[in-house]
Amino acid sequence: MPDDAHVIDPKAAAPIAVQTMKAFVYKGSGQRAFEDHAKPRIIDATDAIVKITKTTICGTDLHILKGDVPTCAPGRILGHEGVGVIDSVGAAVTAFKPGDRVLISCVSACGKCEYCRQGMFSHCLTGGWILGNQIDGTQAEFVRTPHAETSLYPIPQGADEEALVMLSDILPTGFECGVLNGKVAPGATVAIVGSGPVGLAALLTAQFYSPGRIIMIDLDDGRLEIAKRFGATDTINSRDGKAAEALMKLTGGRGVDAAIEAVGIPATFELCEDLIAPGGVIANIGVHGVPVSLHLERLWDRNIAITTRLVDTSSTPMLLKILASKKIDPTKLITHHFKLHQILAAYETFDNAAETHALKVIIEA
Amino acid sequence: MPDDAHVIDPKAAAPIAVQTMKAFVYKGSGQRAFEDHAKPRIIDATDAIVKITKTTICGTDLHILKGDVPTCAPGRILGHEGVGVIDSVGAAVTAFKPGDRVLISCVSACGKCEYCRQGMFSHCLTGGWILGNQIDGTQAEFVRTPHAETSLYPIPQGADEEALVMLSDILPTGFECGVLNGKVAPGATVAIVGSGPVGLAALLTAQFYSPGRIIMIDLDDGRLEIAKRFGATDTINSRDGKAAEALMKLTGGRGVDAAIEAVGIPATFELCEDLIAPGGVIANIGVHGVPVSLHLERLWDRNIAITTRLVDTSSTPMLLKILASKKIDPTKLITHHFKLHQILAAYETFDNAAETHALKVIIEA
Amino acid sequence: MPDDAHVIDPKAAAPIAVQTMKAFVYKGSGQRAFEDHAKPRIIDATDAIVKITKTTICGTDLHILKGDVPTCAPGRILGHEGVGVIDSVGAAVTAFKPGDRVLISCVSACGKCEYCRQGMFSHCLTGGWILGNQIDGTQAEFVRTPHAETSLYPIPQGADEEALVMLSDILPTGFECGVLNGKVAPGATVAIVGSGPVGLAALLTAQFYSPGRIIMIDLDDGRLEIAKRFGATDTINSRDGKAAEALMKLTGGRGVDAAIEAVGIPATFELCEDLIAPGGVIANIGVHGVPVSLHLERLWDRNIAITTRLVDTSSTPMLLKILASKKIDPTKLITHHFKLHQILAAYETFDNAAETHALKVIIEA
Amino acid sequence: MPDDAHVIDPKAAAPIAVQTMKAFVYKGSGQRAFEDHAKPRIIDATDAIVKITKTTICGTDLHILKGDVPTCAPGRILGHEGVGVIDSVGAAVTAFKPGDRVLISCVSACGKCEYCRQGMFSHCLTGGWILGNQIDGTQAEFVRTPHAETSLYPIPQGADEEALVMLSDILPTGFECGVLNGKVAPGATVAIVGSGPVGLAALLTAQFYSPGRIIMIDLDDGRLEIAKRFGATDTINSRDGKAAEALMKLTGGRGVDAAIEAVGIPATFELCEDLIAPGGVIANIGVHGVPVSLHLERLWDRNIAITTRLVDTSSTPMLLKILASKKIDPTKLITHHFKLHQILAAYETFDNAAETHALKVIIEA
Repeated sequence: MPDDAHVIDPKAAAPIAVQTMKAFVYKGSGQRAFEDHAKPRIIDATDAIVKITKTTICGTDLHILKGDVPTCAPGRILGHEGVGVIDSVGAAVTAFKPGDRVLISCVSACGKCEYCRQGMFSHCLTGGWILGNQIDGTQAEFVRTPHAETSLYPIPQGADEEALVMLSDILPTGFECGVLNGKVAPGATVAIVGSGPVGLAALLTAQFYSPGRIIMIDLDDGRLEIAKRFGATDTINSRDGKAAEALMKLTGGRGVDAAIEAVGIPATFELCEDLIAPGGVIANIGVHGVPVSLHLERLWDRNIAITTRLVDTSSTPMLLKILASKKIDPTKLITHHFKLHQILAAYETFDNAAETHALKVIIEA
Repeated sequence: MPDDAHVIDPKAAAPIAVQTMKAFVYKGSGQRAFEDHAKPRIIDATDAIVKITKTTICGTDLHILKGDVPTCAPGRILGHEGVGVIDSVGAAVTAFKPGDRVLISCVSACGKCEYCRQGMFSHCLTGGWILGNQIDGTQAEFVRTPHAETSLYPIPQGADEEALVMLSDILPTGFECGVLNGKVAPGATVAIVGSGPVGLAALLTAQFYSPGRIIMIDLDDGRLEIAKRFGATDTINSRDGKAAEALMKLTGGRGVDAAIEAVGIPATFELCEDLIAPGGVIANIGVHGVPVSLHLERLWDRNIAITTRLVDTSSTPMLLKILASKKIDPTKLITHHFKLHQILAAYETFDNAAETHALKVIIEA
Repeated sequence: MPDDAHVIDPKAAAPIAVQTMKAFVYKGSGQRAFEDHAKPRIIDATDAIVKITKTTICGTDLHILKGDVPTCAPGRILGHEGVGVIDSVGAAVTAFKPGDRVLISCVSACGKCEYCRQGMFSHCLTGGWILGNQIDGTQAEFVRTPHAETSLYPIPQGADEEALVMLSDILPTGFECGVLNGKVAPGATVAIVGSGPVGLAALLTAQFYSPGRIIMIDLDDGRLEIAKRFGATDTINSRDGKAAEALMKLTGGRGVDAAIEAVGIPATFELCEDLIAPGGVIANIGVHGVPVSLHLERLWDRNIAITTRLVDTSSTPMLLKILASKKIDPTKLITHHFKLHQILAAYETFDNAAETHALKVIIEA
Repeated sequence: MPDDAHVIDPKAAAPIAVQTMKAFVYKGSGQRAFEDHAKPRIIDATDAIVKITKTTICGTDLHILKGDVPTCAPGRILGHEGVGVIDSVGAAVTAFKPGDRVLISCVSACGKCEYCRQGMFSHCLTGGWILGNQIDGTQAEFVRTPHAETSLYPIPQGADEEALVMLSDILPTGFECGVLNGKVAPGATVAIVGSGPVGLAALLTAQFYSPGRIIMIDLDDGRLEIAKRFGATDTINSRDGKAAEALMKLTGGRGVDAAIEAVGIPATFELCEDLIAPGGVIANIGVHGVPVSLHLERLWDRNIAITTRLVDTSSTPMLLKILASKKIDPTKLITHHFKLHQILAAYETFDNAAETHALKVIIEA
């Protein structure tokens, strides 16, 4: 790889031998492989090629492997999280140069369409969540990142790169979809339904606003224990189907100001409907596959809001500042480490979280 | 009625002969009467007795008559709208005195509980929508209004009292639950589903914010014609079940920034789910009796909000100012006039709107 | 004093001899006394008489003693902070009864005027900051509190009453005028000019929002040391007149998102003008006696806001919840304790803060 | 001009003969010329060259000619407003192609820096107001526009191009700095100090929010007449120095919710300080050359905000939608038409507005 790693004009570039790299590839429902793949090359002038140093696995990757995400075709390299080093940039990229260390956002944003101008990058007309979905992703030695200048962030001097991997997706997801949409405020009472990685990300970031109580609800006592260590003031195990009664007792019959749904099934969403106080917000984070019952016969006069959101990563600059101020330690979410060639084992570990107690796994390339 | 019409200490008042008045009374499911009833008297120091000059009928009154509102017991005088003249006030009332002309808000607010302090008067711990529901209402010669100082508004010199009757409930309902919750903004595209009185109230008040388009959807061409006259830029008759397709065509496939539900049945709410653009708000006004299907499998990543609200009438001071500035003419909503002794006929007319084309009816006492 | 006690608790009140109590009285510019004074009695139906258990001294009280506050006439009992026990209530008061423990807000709010309805209690047409200013205050055995139901707060079971004294004025002042007006946000950079009691109150409450940096500026190294202990990330001693240069160095030439002025003189306000980043807010808390120079020739295109505010105490319910959650310890502000009969010494101590290092002094009645 | 009018890679382009065009050039304090100038060429990959079809003159251009704007060096082509046709684009520009008709924003925005990500384009680290100031402007046959994709807007089919020239600067300036910063709301009372072009732009756009009253203040009865025609509800001629008294009389002693300063001198700013009601906003639009006196001794407890802003043109998409909906007719501001070769006469006319009654002049290229 002698000297192609520089500013390339794709139109001018002479035909060169295809280079290969290792990558984790979705091969169709239920099938996967860690295999050789062509190294990505600059396509658009606004692209960058990033050499991955650390990546991770998201719950959504498991959905893709089950064949549940129709936008993702077989043959796709998965992964939409990670940090790395700029390998080459397109002709229009001036903000980054080869050698720069960068954080890769899970959302690609052109920065100029109607939605990007509103900060709703998730709905970018030529971006959004495409990485490891509609285009090849980060679970590989290299990745092509479109709209590089508005989708990558320079890594500040001295930053902990493993902490930064948590800023690709899981922290902004918990923060934007759960905490910001839930209007978590000082002194407020918050319930988070689901104590998995994304619920815990909401728990960590909710504390930026000093709520009075954060009540964590899950079926697994082990995860509720972790929630306690991460700052939950109360926990409820919902296995007995009486979580709503238990929460109402805790809150003097009032309910919560924000109910954050971090699971994605009807039962947990409808539980949120039972918890919400007048004037409150049900902030949905979960990825739902079927409709839920909205009890408007009870809720039409409750002055509530229900919000949905695909993470925009518009909060990334804020999260980078908070990380720099040491007000949060997202490495708490990291339970396991693997090398890239061990990625099949990493998936195994992540997919069997009930036994392995995995939250987030770091994969070093 | 010699001289009791003044500041009374109810504890001190000597037993006096019960005075009677005429009132419209809910007598149990499907039954009603216009009959003699005891004239109300001050109970709490913060009460006022108001002599009604004009009142009206709300769609909710029809619901009560059908037995659909369990909080309203037989024997109740209906009505939660109107204007009148102060007859007497409790010991703690200093803001009003006998003879003052007042607007009666449909919501009673103590002004001091947790919810009132947030401006969420609809959930006042000792008020909310109680008038003509849990306590006797305004379709009578006199009404007792609790929390008078924070639930009545002085009528400005020279104001049109029939216009003001529209400020008791229907205008703030359309404005707060539809327009404010829907975040209607200059240039925005708005759909209002339901061109009945409350949908039209949303239409009139949406124009305070200069949206670019207001698309009115209804089954009745007559009501859509009225909507056009009231300022709708487009109308869609939804009888063919293809309203969503028609609206998408009108908006270039984008959908609407605000979808205001002004009917209260599953079909119209779910239509709103089909109309909403990324980043939009579904603002529910309708009173729902059964759950609706919330298609989170399509909406979880749309960055939308769904809001519910019982009118707070917190916007009444703003609406009074706008009325004074002649930027709105709510008397457009008034189609019929009756005297109080004709109230049974008034109900008949209002209940058969399809034939009578009634929107709001004024009843003069 | 036959009939001045208009609407009193009619049940209890027989004509009684004038009762006296001890009180701290402003006797005209530079003069003060701790002397006998008539015990206050109910005047309006919405009043309460509170037996003071703990009160404190505010910087404003020192201004009054110097003759700088023209609204406060000689003969006035000073003090607008404190906690106590309800002694008696007017006929219209139902939310409190004798024996209830209450927090006294420095601002009296009727809850029903145009300004109270907007939550701007400081401008209540019959209230605002009148206690210890236009009516007798809390540095006495008893105080009459007007608009009791909307100006007193029940003390939660088990609350620390000394902490609560800080909620009468100093904490809501620092929080509302400084932190809320300054839009302090997670990760933000904040400067607080003035490390006296009110600047420190802003420092404590700014941390509810997890700003990235809080830079405290003062002339006194001792106070800057305290600021460090209270959570300041950086301190600047401005004695050399180079605070702006020092801050710009600390912030990489960018300036601060919020500059909170907590002194009240032209030099400190103009320093804030030098510190503010584009898009930032200068949130004034200080009580100013003379105009300041606003450098619009430099600031007209900086996209900044400058805010002023008399505390509304509209945040008191939120502060009570945060106090209950132990996210803040306002007793850190308390440096000295006195008995009511030692109040002249307490003033002495408070007025000589440079030597005594007094922040807030508690006076027990 | 054979074939250079296409996508050019500036590095590749062979040296070609310098082409010339006509342009209006600032020649140093008090001096100007309409002369031959080199036609601009693409410098950065994100540039576009626009052939101007219509432009106009701004008050700021007059300031530059007087030598009052130090950032603008002699030799500069002036002008930061206009519409035109894309002549050529840089390698990175995909949103526009030669022949597209475009609106030129007075503010250039990279769309990716810290400030652009907040929508504060005026402070773009490589843009902001540079056109006709730090780089050559639009009063010429051609202009180079940097950051073309985020600084130009496609002209909608059938739009009135003269109306659009008002969207380059004057309408967004009045709207953003005056109306949005002033939080103009339905029913509100607004004062606009200065009935020149920018004050009138604020007047036109304030009406998007249906304020109850708009009181226009100026020294010139002719301009106040125009304000009346444009929608002012009241006017005050301030020549007698008693504008504040007159306004207080009009508002029952209350003052205004928003005072919009559209002149830029101490007297008019200080007048705003005298007009503002508690809780109100003084929204500065004026370009100030000297400090003003801020009367904090009167305003510290008024709960007001003072805002400054260089227009961001972040409201341009909204204004384009409103223009399309015919809710505003900005051509009302256009009083004169000239051809480009008459630009010296156009300046003459614009600069002598007192006699010519010029508001905005259109210059056709």
